[in-house]
Amino acid sequence: MDILHRVGIENSAPEKVYDALTTVEGLAGWWTDDVTGDPDVGGVLEFRFPPGGFDMKVLDRRPGERVTWEVVAGPAEWVGTTVDWQLRRDGDYTVVLFEHQGWAEPVEFMHHCSTKWATYLMSLKQLVETGEGAPSPKDVHIAYPD
Amino acid sequence: MDILHRVGIENSAPEKVYDALTTVEGLAGWWTDDVTGDPDVGGVLEFRFPPGGFDMKVLDRRPGERVTWEVVAGPAEWVGTTVDWQLRRDGDYTVVLFEHQGWAEPVEFMHHCSTKWATYLMSLKQLVETGEGAPSPKDVHIAYPD
Repeated sequence: MDILHRVGIENSAPEKVYDALTTVEGLAGWWTDDVTGDPDVGGVLEFRFPPGGFDMKVLDRRPGERVTWEVVAGPAEWVGTTVDWQLRRDGDYTVVLFEHQGWAEPVEFMHHCSTKWATYLMSLKQLVETGEGAPSPKDVHIAYPD
Repeated sequence: MDILHRVGIENSAPEKVYDALTTVEGLAGWWTDDVTGDPDVGGVLEFRFPPGGFDMKVLDRRPGERVTWEVVAGPAEWVGTTVDWQLRRDGDYTVVLFEHQGWAEPVEFMHHCSTKWATYLMSLKQLVETGEGAPSPKDVHIAYPD
């Protein structure tokens, strides 16, 4: 089972979105300000949030086109899943196709993560469009203080 | 294939969220201001947006607990799918579990609708928490001017 999302980022080349997905500084601008690690293929990125975090191994990255991570540590439901980003240019927009693939069961945590990913994709869009995203701990709350 | 989401609505009883899902006035406050029809079981609600719309047959409604719609007209990918809302109280919150069930294929339009549903769930949350949502045509844009 997969979580799917799509956003369109205005007045932006795919290379700019790619930078926000493949540099520690870029990732810190929209997902969490507590990110460390190696964003090259085979490297591991450590994303931390107040309640926990995820370690992502970079499986693939193709400039301006695609980034794929495998979750190698984190909540049990996440470990072994993959997070895939496809980018393409469409006029003045960069279209971002997002898939968090391989959930075993449609548990309530999957519902939560789906909505939360949407808000982080909007944060990525805002970062690239305006220079300012809403990474954790400034992230949009969707449920409990989370 | 299903689109899953969850939000928590603060300082709200499930009955208040239920009203926003089962009255024309409530639905107009978070999804689209152009909604007409019969919100009772067996009735059809017509939701319209600048680019088109959806007709939803009300399959089930249980006060404060659940609402289920079947899409009877709209985009081909939507017709025959179901939209299911489960509500429960959790302390000061109402938890909303959302599922748009029965997509045939993970087409790009499904990615778009998943993200768009998330923003409309945030609109529902804002409506119930603050009295003001962001229904179409005041909805949050996630991609092209849409």
